[in-house]
Amino acid sequence: MKKLNVGILGLGTVGGGTYDILVKNHDLIQQRTGVSIEVVKILDLRKRPGVDESLFTTDPDEVLNNPDVDLIVETLGGIQPASSFMVQAMKNGKHVVTANKAAVAATYVELQETAAANGVKFLFEASVGGGIPVLTAIQGNLSGNNFLEVMGIVNGTTNYILTKMTEDGADYAEVLKDAQAKGFAEADPTADVEGIDVANKLCILIALLFGQYIAPGEIPTTGISKITGEDITAAKAEGCKIKLIAHAKIEDGKVIASVGPERIPESHPLAGVSNEFNAVYITGDMVDEVMLYGKGAGALPTGSAIVGDIISVAKEVK
Amino acid sequence: MKKLNVGILGLGTVGGGTYDILVKNHDLIQQRTGVSIEVVKILDLRKRPGVDESLFTTDPDEVLNNPDVDLIVETLGGIQPASSFMVQAMKNGKHVVTANKAAVAATYVELQETAAANGVKFLFEASVGGGIPVLTAIQGNLSGNNFLEVMGIVNGTTNYILTKMTEDGADYAEVLKDAQAKGFAEADPTADVEGIDVANKLCILIALLFGQYIAPGEIPTTGISKITGEDITAAKAEGCKIKLIAHAKIEDGKVIASVGPERIPESHPLAGVSNEFNAVYITGDMVDEVMLYGKGAGALPTGSAIVGDIISVAKEVK
Repeated sequence: MKKLNVGILGLGTVGGGTYDILVKNHDLIQQRTGVSIEVVKILDLRKRPGVDESLFTTDPDEVLNNPDVDLIVETLGGIQPASSFMVQAMKNGKHVVTANKAAVAATYVELQETAAANGVKFLFEASVGGGIPVLTAIQGNLSGNNFLEVMGIVNGTTNYILTKMTEDGADYAEVLKDAQAKGFAEADPTADVEGIDVANKLCILIALLFGQYIAPGEIPTTGISKITGEDITAAKAEGCKIKLIAHAKIEDGKVIASVGPERIPESHPLAGVSNEFNAVYITGDMVDEVMLYGKGAGALPTGSAIVGDIISVAKEVK
Repeated sequence: MKKLNVGILGLGTVGGGTYDILVKNHDLIQQRTGVSIEVVKILDLRKRPGVDESLFTTDPDEVLNNPDVDLIVETLGGIQPASSFMVQAMKNGKHVVTANKAAVAATYVELQETAAANGVKFLFEASVGGGIPVLTAIQGNLSGNNFLEVMGIVNGTTNYILTKMTEDGADYAEVLKDAQAKGFAEADPTADVEGIDVANKLCILIALLFGQYIAPGEIPTTGISKITGEDITAAKAEGCKIKLIAHAKIEDGKVIASVGPERIPESHPLAGVSNEFNAVYITGDMVDEVMLYGKGAGALPTGSAIVGDIISVAKEVK
């Protein structure tokens, strides 16, 4: 039996979801790929009940330099040390799969170059749109297209807040408080509500769609914290919903990018993307319009995308 | 420069769209894949202005047995001789890409077994949902999931008719006549309006999602020709739209499949899929709900899916 040994950096929500899928669907995946995928090492300060204690280590080198590990799943979050760990793993000949949009966006060029120089795969489907297989589609079946435009709802927290403001006529501050109580928004919601998370994801989309790297900090970014009930009502009067849109298009051969609230006509497919759901709407010169919709966060949906990336490496195991 | 030589069977709408994409986006695709993809032979009774006359032949063997051809695009439509041609090409060591849902659904097992026995790729993304990269997603990034259910709007003609009946309160016969005048429905619309085309596509979805072959004729199938304005109004009163749904799910370990009109709540993402658009809504045990939306027909959208399949073969050219 062919084998692929996985090391996980960080067994939090997404790392834990990935572990659970690899265990629960192990036999199904083995049947589909002909490869047995095993988690052989986990970097985390805390052990998790039900997971073999001997897998855990608190020493990054025991995963990154481990000759038994073929592929690293990076689910630590944050730019550093995550990015350096990924580079170190690739230099050791290990494939890298990550959900970490901040690290991918900040150090995209270095990560891609390191992967190429070391002949390993670097995959990050889970970094944009959680479980939605959008990056794979862009690099795969849609890649006969010259891409023209992308519009994405790629942050569940802000989409939830805007949906509740629209449905209940409630004010921003009130809905944010409710979202925090329900666990849909962080205690410090800045990265979400000010569009920083969305800018990271747009940076990644632009790199894959248009082959250009535009740093997240260079993308004009406006959040939703200044949106009022009046804005929502005024949009509604014109048959529109307000959505926080990651937007990029080609104009005169150049990429024009922005993150900010936009009025989306109710007849547009993105207007129907409610609550914590995400969607990415892509225009290509041949396929015309395509939209991919699903859960943009959560342990198992995001884990599904990571496992999908692992499977694409497994299929190449000789 | 690596090369992949393509032969096209049938330069009609979809075959012609495929040819156009391979010519227009040749350099872009070469840049992305490192492979020059060339059309070297075309089977068609009619030549097409602007296409090199020497490429055309009326003898199938000049494509199927041509040692210069690496990959066959089958866009003849209909079960025979398309299916036999595909088998012959695979036995000659050629990869096969097709948009032909009738042939794939009718002879699925033989086509897959022939591909496996001859070590060639057999790809058919364009056969379900036109340009929507749904089959690639099922077999690719989503393949860590145990799939539970699929609901698809996969026929543009019937979705256009139902949309117009809903929006304009018009009767079936009247809208069908209008759709025929506009070229959205065939002169003999039976295969579309009676759900036969949808059953072919559901057969293919079931094979990939659940690993079982259920012949289209064994799927209980109802079309839309008996839907009345009263049915639409009654559905609307309950907050629903009537859609022709390809539906399959796992119940007690068995696949339950049907094609027929269903009431879809207006809050469901499939309710927003209007006019000639298609969408496939999939539930997996890990990713939860995912929907892929786009143009289910047309020369270039369908050609985009075919070219995507060709590219996936090109990426493996040594």
